[in-house]
Amino acid sequence: MTKTVYIAGLGLIGSSLALGIRRDHPDYRILGYNRGEASRSIALEKGIVDEATDDFAHFAGQADLIFLCVPIQQTIDFIKQLATLELKEGVLITDAGSTKQAIVEAAETYLVPKQLNFIGSHPMAGSHKSGAIAADINLFENAYFIFTPCKATKKDAIPRLTDLLSGLHARFIEIDAKEHDYVTSQVSHFPHVLASSLMNQAGSYAVDHPLTNNFAAGGFRDMTRIAESEPGMWTSILMTNPTSILERIEEFKERLDQVAEMLKTRDESGIWHFFEQGRLTRKEMEIHKRGGVDSFYDIFISVPDEEDTILKVLELLRGISVVNLRINEENRSDINGILQITFKNKEDLEKAARLIREQTSYQVYLD
Amino acid sequence: MTKTVYIAGLGLIGSSLALGIRRDHPDYRILGYNRGEASRSIALEKGIVDEATDDFAHFAGQADLIFLCVPIQQTIDFIKQLATLELKEGVLITDAGSTKQAIVEAAETYLVPKQLNFIGSHPMAGSHKSGAIAADINLFENAYFIFTPCKATKKDAIPRLTDLLSGLHARFIEIDAKEHDYVTSQVSHFPHVLASSLMNQAGSYAVDHPLTNNFAAGGFRDMTRIAESEPGMWTSILMTNPTSILERIEEFKERLDQVAEMLKTRDESGIWHFFEQGRLTRKEMEIHKRGGVDSFYDIFISVPDEEDTILKVLELLRGISVVNLRINEENRSDINGILQITFKNKEDLEKAARLIREQTSYQVYLD
Repeated sequence: MTKTVYIAGLGLIGSSLALGIRRDHPDYRILGYNRGEASRSIALEKGIVDEATDDFAHFAGQADLIFLCVPIQQTIDFIKQLATLELKEGVLITDAGSTKQAIVEAAETYLVPKQLNFIGSHPMAGSHKSGAIAADINLFENAYFIFTPCKATKKDAIPRLTDLLSGLHARFIEIDAKEHDYVTSQVSHFPHVLASSLMNQAGSYAVDHPLTNNFAAGGFRDMTRIAESEPGMWTSILMTNPTSILERIEEFKERLDQVAEMLKTRDESGIWHFFEQGRLTRKEMEIHKRGGVDSFYDIFISVPDEEDTILKVLELLRGISVVNLRINEENRSDINGILQITFKNKEDLEKAARLIREQTSYQVYLD
Repeated sequence: MTKTVYIAGLGLIGSSLALGIRRDHPDYRILGYNRGEASRSIALEKGIVDEATDDFAHFAGQADLIFLCVPIQQTIDFIKQLATLELKEGVLITDAGSTKQAIVEAAETYLVPKQLNFIGSHPMAGSHKSGAIAADINLFENAYFIFTPCKATKKDAIPRLTDLLSGLHARFIEIDAKEHDYVTSQVSHFPHVLASSLMNQAGSYAVDHPLTNNFAAGGFRDMTRIAESEPGMWTSILMTNPTSILERIEEFKERLDQVAEMLKTRDESGIWHFFEQGRLTRKEMEIHKRGGVDSFYDIFISVPDEEDTILKVLELLRGISVVNLRINEENRSDINGILQITFKNKEDLEKAARLIREQTSYQVYLD
């Protein structure tokens, strides 16, 4: 049984994991490493960890389970370091990196010879907040929590982790590290390259066409939002998943060539089908709905364009935690706007739907 | 003086223009054309127009000003048709198309020989609503309203239009049709191609990698949102602005090649600078702020992550029209969330800021 958990990296992910572990295992001892003092102190003050250090090796030998929640390159460095340390018999090592193959390869190279037990993890959750001060016991609720077993993984790894992490209320899923990196290259890493490239292109175009800075509207804003992310993390992701991203780039260039060809040959029907295909694919993908990694529960309310409508709806929902809300900007052919409200769980969602249906005449859609 | 205005196309744009014209010119006669019966009837019932027809030629001869608010190809067809009709002396013709060069060329070809007065227009506003039923007198408030003069444009065109449209409270700006199409290709048309291409790529990737459908998160969702737009309008835009879009495609492929090269040569610093450049460019572009074509007024409130926070804020703002609101998802390093609320005008924005500052301890940012 795991009794002592060592969490290396007390940022948003590491400290939220600690809270989630404590929920179902209040008797476990949780130790923490963090290089920076701020999150280390906060984690101690808030009782997120029982003890904390700025020297990674310090607690490594005491742990039944080691969770590496540091940047990708540091995760790899710590894996190398763990192979040199005196560790507890039966210790299980895992991580929380956004790419998996490079980390898994490091584990196979350095931990297999020492017969150490390692499995890759990727808890697919995040927030606009960071640091231990933002620790959230519900961060992983309904989020995908991906395990990527490898040659260093022993049979007990997944049962031990799902037991340890039961308090996260996450959706555990097991896939190959390679497949993880393929899929995330398509839905996350390559889109990031697109967003930054578009932003850079527009910036460069604005030199000779200054109104570029003024005429950018909602669509452009949405498409480039992620270009404002912190560059360091994304550089690490690109550096550790180059093959998949290169493949996505080459394939995407072929798609652009096809559009260019249709433009050159004035293939109006082809262009229409290109757009229509995108529209249908997105509808089928159901990324509006719960089930994506955001793992939130959304309600869609058709509301009239009147003053205080949002206030009226929120008054009905008083006491129910609202994760986010927005007036849906997508083109619609009806007069009412669609107020989209995101809840944390199914219970809140259903309670909200019932209240709105009972007390207003607004149409309510749950997906 | 313009006394009779003929609006061809009583969709959202045409009928909102009619309401805006009436605000400062209640004595003008407004005639409308619409092919479909629904918006025609609604426009009559709501008094948006005084008379309406489904035969474009019917009212053309009575108008001092003709506003073509129909799809791009139909705008071009109507321009051709107007050259064959008996029109009033001094009639001014304009349009509302999303691309300008093809329309301006049609005007130069067909209207110049008849010495007819034409100027291109592009009111840069929209909504998720459509049809006369969604007509909104404030739709163009603070929006860019672009004029593209051409060889068919007489000196009185812009003064007459700015007088006619003073009730829109729009920001009038005059640019060359070619420059309009260049800039919009960069900030709107080409991004649309990117969004649909990414959506199609993900759909195709999901065939062999089914988790693509599950792991798509917020960034992917934002980047592909516009791929769900109605394909017809975007096909017309591509068909009438092919040169600029082709140029953006080719230039973008070179940018992708540069990223690919950095991946192949493991140029970590180059990749970091690529992302950092995008981040800085976007910050400088200030598309978070008012001044973009959305022309909305945004307030940013740093709020604690507590239940009913949004409700409390909206209660303070009771009676002030809220265009949209959301919890800002961009990565931030502080603990509070950022509640972003969009207002219709400066007065509402300033009133809201004052109320929140007076009655809460939340930090309020106006840009």
